Amino acid sequence: MNMMVFEYGEDIIIVDCGVMFPEPELLGVDIVIPDLTYLRDRRDHVRAIVLTHGHEDHIGGLPYVLEELDVPVYGTAFTLALAKSRLEEHGLAEGAVLREMKPKAPFRVGPFQIEFIHLTHSIIDSGALAITTPVGTVIHTGDFKFDPTPTDGRTSDLHTLANYGQRDVLALFSDSTNVERPGMTPSERGVRERFAEIMAEAHGRLVVTCFSTSLHRMQIVADLASEHKRRLCFIGRSMHRNSEIALQMGRLRVPAGVLVAPEDLKDLPRDRVVLVVAGSQGEPLSAMARIAVDSHRWVTLEPGDEVVISARVIPGNEKAIFRMMDHLYRRGAHVHYQDGNQPPVHVSGHGSIEELRLMLNLVRPKYFTPVHGEYRQLARHKEMAEQGSAVSGGTFLLESGNVLEFDGVGARLGEPVPVGHVYIDTGSLEEVGEVVLKERRRISEDGIVVPILAINKHTGELETLPEIVSRGFVHLDNAGDLMESARQVVLKTLEKSKPEEAGDWGMVKDKIRSSLRKFFDQELGKRPMIMPVVLEV
Amino acid sequence: MNMMVFEYGEDIIIVDCGVMFPEPELLGVDIVIPDLTYLRDRRDHVRAIVLTHGHEDHIGGLPYVLEELDVPVYGTAFTLALAKSRLEEHGLAEGAVLREMKPKAPFRVGPFQIEFIHLTHSIIDSGALAITTPVGTVIHTGDFKFDPTPTDGRTSDLHTLANYGQRDVLALFSDSTNVERPGMTPSERGVRERFAEIMAEAHGRLVVTCFSTSLHRMQIVADLASEHKRRLCFIGRSMHRNSEIALQMGRLRVPAGVLVAPEDLKDLPRDRVVLVVAGSQGEPLSAMARIAVDSHRWVTLEPGDEVVISARVIPGNEKAIFRMMDHLYRRGAHVHYQDGNQPPVHVSGHGSIEELRLMLNLVRPKYFTPVHGEYRQLARHKEMAEQGSAVSGGTFLLESGNVLEFDGVGARLGEPVPVGHVYIDTGSLEEVGEVVLKERRRISEDGIVVPILAINKHTGELETLPEIVSRGFVHLDNAGDLMESARQVVLKTLEKSKPEEAGDWGMVKDKIRSSLRKFFDQELGKRPMIMPVVLEV
Repeated sequence: MNMMVFEYGEDIIIVDCGVMFPEPELLGVDIVIPDLTYLRDRRDHVRAIVLTHGHEDHIGGLPYVLEELDVPVYGTAFTLALAKSRLEEHGLAEGAVLREMKPKAPFRVGPFQIEFIHLTHSIIDSGALAITTPVGTVIHTGDFKFDPTPTDGRTSDLHTLANYGQRDVLALFSDSTNVERPGMTPSERGVRERFAEIMAEAHGRLVVTCFSTSLHRMQIVADLASEHKRRLCFIGRSMHRNSEIALQMGRLRVPAGVLVAPEDLKDLPRDRVVLVVAGSQGEPLSAMARIAVDSHRWVTLEPGDEVVISARVIPGNEKAIFRMMDHLYRRGAHVHYQDGNQPPVHVSGHGSIEELRLMLNLVRPKYFTPVHGEYRQLARHKEMAEQGSAVSGGTFLLESGNVLEFDGVGARLGEPVPVGHVYIDTGSLEEVGEVVLKERRRISEDGIVVPILAINKHTGELETLPEIVSRGFVHLDNAGDLMESARQVVLKTLEKSKPEEAGDWGMVKDKIRSSLRKFFDQELGKRPMIMPVVLEV
Repeated sequence: MNMMVFEYGEDIIIVDCGVMFPEPELLGVDIVIPDLTYLRDRRDHVRAIVLTHGHEDHIGGLPYVLEELDVPVYGTAFTLALAKSRLEEHGLAEGAVLREMKPKAPFRVGPFQIEFIHLTHSIIDSGALAITTPVGTVIHTGDFKFDPTPTDGRTSDLHTLANYGQRDVLALFSDSTNVERPGMTPSERGVRERFAEIMAEAHGRLVVTCFSTSLHRMQIVADLASEHKRRLCFIGRSMHRNSEIALQMGRLRVPAGVLVAPEDLKDLPRDRVVLVVAGSQGEPLSAMARIAVDSHRWVTLEPGDEVVISARVIPGNEKAIFRMMDHLYRRGAHVHYQDGNQPPVHVSGHGSIEELRLMLNLVRPKYFTPVHGEYRQLARHKEMAEQGSAVSGGTFLLESGNVLEFDGVGARLGEPVPVGHVYIDTGSLEEVGEVVLKERRRISEDGIVVPILAINKHTGELETLPEIVSRGFVHLDNAGDLMESARQVVLKTLEKSKPEEAGDWGMVKDKIRSSLRKFFDQELGKRPMIMPVVLEV
């Protein structure tokens, strides 16, 4: 959920606008976006959103943020194409102002001069931003690796980084994801060898699943498909959409007659096709997950088919991916995944330690701040920078909401600003509040009990015995006796109430809640949510 | 959740009796045990439970299973000591019959002759079982590695395995956990070098967290503590309990004057102590998790302290562990974990490919079945066995509930038997049914709405306007208007009911449920659980 705000005077630009996917404990929440309170209070000062690249955790929040902040969005051609398709899904593409930025073509937004510097990553058209204001230039790397042989031949623009490094760079904000990995990350081209081996030996269907933004991977499979005379098919909504976009833009090159539509797969021999399928994280409704449990409309697997899982396991997705792999084995498929065997079926899109060091040594900033990583990774990246000699001024470890202030004198932490998570329930496109979430969690753990009192509004006396309904709490078989005892508890509580209490239904409810809580705790060791209702009849 | 049943004629023995920890989606469930239906129906034929070793996923189900099956439990001395302490917690130690088994001392249980064969693992006193019946001998490896230098000097009993291999072994059931790892797993002693480096360089407190059954790790830390003149303290309930058990049994050796109680830590200089702490998986209530967020009663961390996480990340625990690590970095501690740096801070307790091959070649079984692993690991282990020459008869991949039958002629799959999960809510020591779980999940996703109708029992008419209560559904701020509209929906549904429907409250409830479901779906795109209540007053 990346979002960074740069502010000079009163003017603001936002770098990236991501979403996060919720933990399973956040029930009924589909995605998480940043809390915009700080920006909402300054909406008139926000000049632009600038995107470093097109991954979901950098652009996925756009539809929600643009609803609140009506500002132009800058990005490279492919990034904007992905952003536009996302906005179209939300019916927001019409009103959005999308402005393409290009390498070596600085542009101005208010007091900011911004230059996009192309860097390699697992997605194409990705890069860093050099942002210059009267107090100096800061460089935000975005996500990067220094890939010497990207599949599109567009290597990282070391020269522009070097040029900035020869002038004064005030601060560097650098990707920390792979600070724990020694050496250099292999090139995107590094998976080609293994893919080629697998394709050469495959006697059945070949299925490759990867992120649907992995154009490098898609290009490698497309090239191998035409070499090995297999037809190529993209499966899954996002895979289909992104491959269409890339083909139209000329960023994915597939020879004529190689592509085939999913519905025509059935007419082709199994050893004459290769499928590139969305759902590498085992997402339950994804094409790959459906194929694994044999419930996909067009694609089935048979013993002897080959499946390549060409993606990392995003923390939190382990169980879903492992379950999917088990199902693939049950289909009889042979599964290739990141098990340490070489050459690799997947390479990371983020630079390892030596690449992070190279970035530091090229840019030679006065101040350094690690970004994009968990706290432990930021801490290690900061430590690494302090051990080297590239940083002349100082290092800062920032967490969400922290503010770093620069002026002619130096840099220092400012007062933190409000930040947080906003939970989105996409079923209704509605924010889910913290209170609702807490209630859901409580109910889901110990159930809910609703004691109902029907009171004669004239006499103030009970009209009937209290009713007690419950859900998610005990088996109905066992519930009878227990609920009978609970009714007696409610009755006794009412009988023992003093007259002045009995007239105060708020107080009666509290007493009932507390006596039932005690009762269920003693009887069952449970603490359901207790929600007394008083009906005057 | 390991449990395997061996049956000859009508007699049954059970090997291992484990628990599993639930996925986060299983709300309010604390542990999962095997469904005992098959055994319950044959309870008079069950002769014994035999434990291969003392890990939770092999002994944790004992308290639940012994409540139903009153049979003797066989295990090695340390395994039984852990089992006993678990049974004591449940007040079941008195009635339990625990029988110690020793290596090279076969014993009979009904028609079964059982020999325990000592093998190395991450826990001491672990091993395989050779089970002989008139149709032949089967060997169940338990969890194992071939550690050439275990800290207690008790290496794997290769000779007894070799002796069985020279006779006819009908079948081998072998641990598959590390079939994806090439080579040999390093010795338990392998972490000593790194621990020693860290301790030699530590200037502050040193904290090591590992599984509380990792006696090898605990012994290494104890030895280093006395070398480096640090006092040793065990922190956390399970760590304290297991170290006490091991000390009493002479299986953990700590020189006099080295141990210190948690409450005395405050009197010692920070660089003169080393703590061994429970909670390596970031379990929210564990000692380590508390220390990480600075809420432990006796232990605080300061910048410059060192923390060693000497455990693997069990799939599913990634986020909890990463969160804990972030908190440790926030405390300013330096954290050592499995990041690929050598020498390792953790080694696996399970044998890698070459050890699995060695087991196969030593035992040379007629039939082979991989056990203990996910489906993909079982599939790979089976494939590996088929590639070698050790197995003369055939291989079988079994899933839970599958039956493998042997007789004088050969082996074949039998009819599957009922198996499954039983969810235990330890708060009440009560099983949670599937229905309750489904309700909890449903409620937790979209909330609950309770429309309440108070009906005059004489006239059959509504006494008051319908009341509607809800939880986990919408913010109370927005609820007013919505609930008012919902009341109107209920009223209209009642008005439109035909007279014969209106007298049938079951039907009225159904109609209300369906009209409210439609209403909330249209208005909010949500499907809360709707639970109409009719009160006759």
